[in-house]
Amino acid sequence: MIYRKNISPQPSLRTYRREFCIMGYEAIKSIFEPQSIAIIGASRDQKKVSNIILNNLLKADFKGKIFPINPKVKNILGLKTYPSLQDVPDQIELAVIVVPSIIVPKILRECHRKEIKSVIVISGGFRETGKDGEELEKKVIQIVRKTGIRLVGPNCIGIQNPRIGISMWGVIKKGGPIGIIAQSGTVKGAIEFWAEKEGIGISKSIALGNKVDIDEIDLLPYFAEDPNTKVIAMYLEGITDGRKFLEVASEVTKKKPIVVLKGGKTEAGKRAALSHTKSMAGKDEIFEAAFRQSGIIRAHTIEELYDFSKALAFLPLPKGRRVLIITSSGGAGILAADLCEKLGLKIPQLLERTEKRLRRLLPAYCIFDNPFDLTITTAERFQLVIEENLNNKDNFNAFIPIFGDPIPQAAEAVKSVLKITEKPVLVCYIAGGEVEEEEKTKMHKMGIPVYPSPERAVTALNTLVKRYEMLSRNCSS
Amino acid sequence: MIYRKNISPQPSLRTYRREFCIMGYEAIKSIFEPQSIAIIGASRDQKKVSNIILNNLLKADFKGKIFPINPKVKNILGLKTYPSLQDVPDQIELAVIVVPSIIVPKILRECHRKEIKSVIVISGGFRETGKDGEELEKKVIQIVRKTGIRLVGPNCIGIQNPRIGISMWGVIKKGGPIGIIAQSGTVKGAIEFWAEKEGIGISKSIALGNKVDIDEIDLLPYFAEDPNTKVIAMYLEGITDGRKFLEVASEVTKKKPIVVLKGGKTEAGKRAALSHTKSMAGKDEIFEAAFRQSGIIRAHTIEELYDFSKALAFLPLPKGRRVLIITSSGGAGILAADLCEKLGLKIPQLLERTEKRLRRLLPAYCIFDNPFDLTITTAERFQLVIEENLNNKDNFNAFIPIFGDPIPQAAEAVKSVLKITEKPVLVCYIAGGEVEEEEKTKMHKMGIPVYPSPERAVTALNTLVKRYEMLSRNCSS
Repeated sequence: MIYRKNISPQPSLRTYRREFCIMGYEAIKSIFEPQSIAIIGASRDQKKVSNIILNNLLKADFKGKIFPINPKVKNILGLKTYPSLQDVPDQIELAVIVVPSIIVPKILRECHRKEIKSVIVISGGFRETGKDGEELEKKVIQIVRKTGIRLVGPNCIGIQNPRIGISMWGVIKKGGPIGIIAQSGTVKGAIEFWAEKEGIGISKSIALGNKVDIDEIDLLPYFAEDPNTKVIAMYLEGITDGRKFLEVASEVTKKKPIVVLKGGKTEAGKRAALSHTKSMAGKDEIFEAAFRQSGIIRAHTIEELYDFSKALAFLPLPKGRRVLIITSSGGAGILAADLCEKLGLKIPQLLERTEKRLRRLLPAYCIFDNPFDLTITTAERFQLVIEENLNNKDNFNAFIPIFGDPIPQAAEAVKSVLKITEKPVLVCYIAGGEVEEEEKTKMHKMGIPVYPSPERAVTALNTLVKRYEMLSRNCSS
Repeated sequence: MIYRKNISPQPSLRTYRREFCIMGYEAIKSIFEPQSIAIIGASRDQKKVSNIILNNLLKADFKGKIFPINPKVKNILGLKTYPSLQDVPDQIELAVIVVPSIIVPKILRECHRKEIKSVIVISGGFRETGKDGEELEKKVIQIVRKTGIRLVGPNCIGIQNPRIGISMWGVIKKGGPIGIIAQSGTVKGAIEFWAEKEGIGISKSIALGNKVDIDEIDLLPYFAEDPNTKVIAMYLEGITDGRKFLEVASEVTKKKPIVVLKGGKTEAGKRAALSHTKSMAGKDEIFEAAFRQSGIIRAHTIEELYDFSKALAFLPLPKGRRVLIITSSGGAGILAADLCEKLGLKIPQLLERTEKRLRRLLPAYCIFDNPFDLTITTAERFQLVIEENLNNKDNFNAFIPIFGDPIPQAAEAVKSVLKITEKPVLVCYIAGGEVEEEEKTKMHKMGIPVYPSPERAVTALNTLVKRYEMLSRNCSS
């Protein structure tokens, strides 16, 4: 296991805990793929988080067993409810704790007695709230250390695994290729909802909360091994152990792309990060350099985190920076060209023989250049232009078709192209109204990512180029 | 009329034409608000642009008369069709020309005979296609010069005016506050479709095409006077007469905001712009300085053009840079704070007395800072925090509430706040799934713009600040 953590020469509370617990791949697996879940603090009140979680698990059609725990009621949402963990006759793989913070230590001890190895503490009220909370959190850490329980949170909104019907916050049904590790439930949720809406889906996701135990370093190996995860999208405020994180991340990025959005870049953001998760956000230049060194791709907005993950999850890498823009819209083509040049992507002209052939095959009003402007046109002509270029050897490394009107059959045209090439095709569909919605849905079903503006398509392509160049450097060194 | 064009001391073809035609506010009005439209070159073939335009006018329920012109058929889409313009018994206010480019000059002469003063030439095949097209375009210019006809295009996709049922490209039904002048049908279409989808709507829009006659300088005064237009969104590749444009724009921006997206910033983009509309894109630094000087706000992507227009159309201006971020999401709050600081917006702390009051009114797990982090919460608490601040004098100039979970009743809460303040409230709603969709729709119906990420809300606010500062400079100078 290349990922196993080393024991620090100066053991702190954290390293001690790590040493004691070792890594526990199985415990992490129990968090994402449990056969059974206990909801401790389950409530009948629809406004309570525990009720929402239970309800979401039912709506998402969780395949395993669910045991609500509440001493006061017999039945919640049609499920038999147990007074305490000890009353559950079966084994429990994962405990989700949603009780007032003050009794979390007691519950953790009960979990240990029930031989539960993995818990998620949803409850807030720990170090994020001041001195008393800090004391309480220390108690939790001590119990984790003593018992070997692996703990997610506290102060988090849990995990999702749509393929086996685990939804804790919002109902996510579509299984897809994007894995999410986030120190913010909302950033996680945003990616999830966008991916759900577009029919792209996520593999697994987790909100870290205060990360007193399980952190990004524990999780990366799991996501790296997970066959459903093609890209790891991360939102981080602080990093628990910078050196170790980069060591692990450097290994993982050789295998799978990691995209990181980092909160707390500025003084204002750092102050907020300190309040939010007590993260020491540190100097942004250091992160920038460290991310680059370890092959991590950096996003600067939540939308970029999504866009980049989408591209990296679905598209092959371009073997260079030469892009052909094919467009029905002169304006959108120009905006794409502008951004390509700004980002250092090349948009060379067509080979002479290709241009000649295309001039014979297409109307004279087309602009036989790069951007290749078809003006008012059909999807077949997009296909024709890309195919003619592909048939004429290696002039381009990537294609950006911009469907800039309501152009039907775009999905079929792109799909046909993909059959004969391993070069990335970054589709932009814009100003297409209902036809755009239909074609986009079709393409996402086919595993073809679509971007809503030329600028977002180009920026996503640039990310693929960066990843290719990073991997090439690694190979040659 | 402050906008009337001066006669250049060295009359060129263009200035000659201008001198000859004078400005023709009435002719421009006929383009956007005609009582009757002739579609010359109307076709029964559903794939032809002329058929699409006719069909769209019918779908959008155009209030005036439509006269399809085609010598070969009697009836198109249920409308009586005339062999030629001369056969139409009524007066015609606007002619839309969709014929092969070679006969456009002939048709223009017929328009003149029929005393039509305003035409839109949809047909392409002019200077954008090479030498022959250039000659043809010169002929068109000569006719325009001789006859005084005002002409939009050629090589464009016309106009929209949803309030009277004019849709030429895509069916746009929602009348709203955004006016669009664009040298690209797709950029125009993107804004239109987004505005339609969000229920925000546009006032009027126009695609300029090759702009041999009517250009941005002619149009700005019309949009400035139009009571339905609250903001003018422009996409430009080149500017016909830079000095004149800035002169007119400087006048208009005193009254209404102008947002410009400029294509052809880089060498690659310039080359493409030259092919697209034969625009000389010029040095970007010059545009940047000129835009700033004339009070124009610059967008750098199509999404920014939309976001900025949305903010400027609906929101009051903040009288300073002090922002309060109220959030249910620590992460999204941090990302907003980071971007505020980067853009020079201030996020000062709460006044002591306000903080004290809020500590009494809200649970201890809230973070009583800026960003004000409510964590898991209700819409009423957002309202409470903003109201308590408003009741305590002028500490903030703007508010950014970030609804970062499925929080119902957000629309009502924001609406209540707006009743007691004239400060801008830039709503971000993210990670809210179906609840988000519902609340967003409600807010857009109420005229409250909603942004899909904290970063886009902050950038839009920054635009309002820029506009306020520009207007303040003008007042004090």
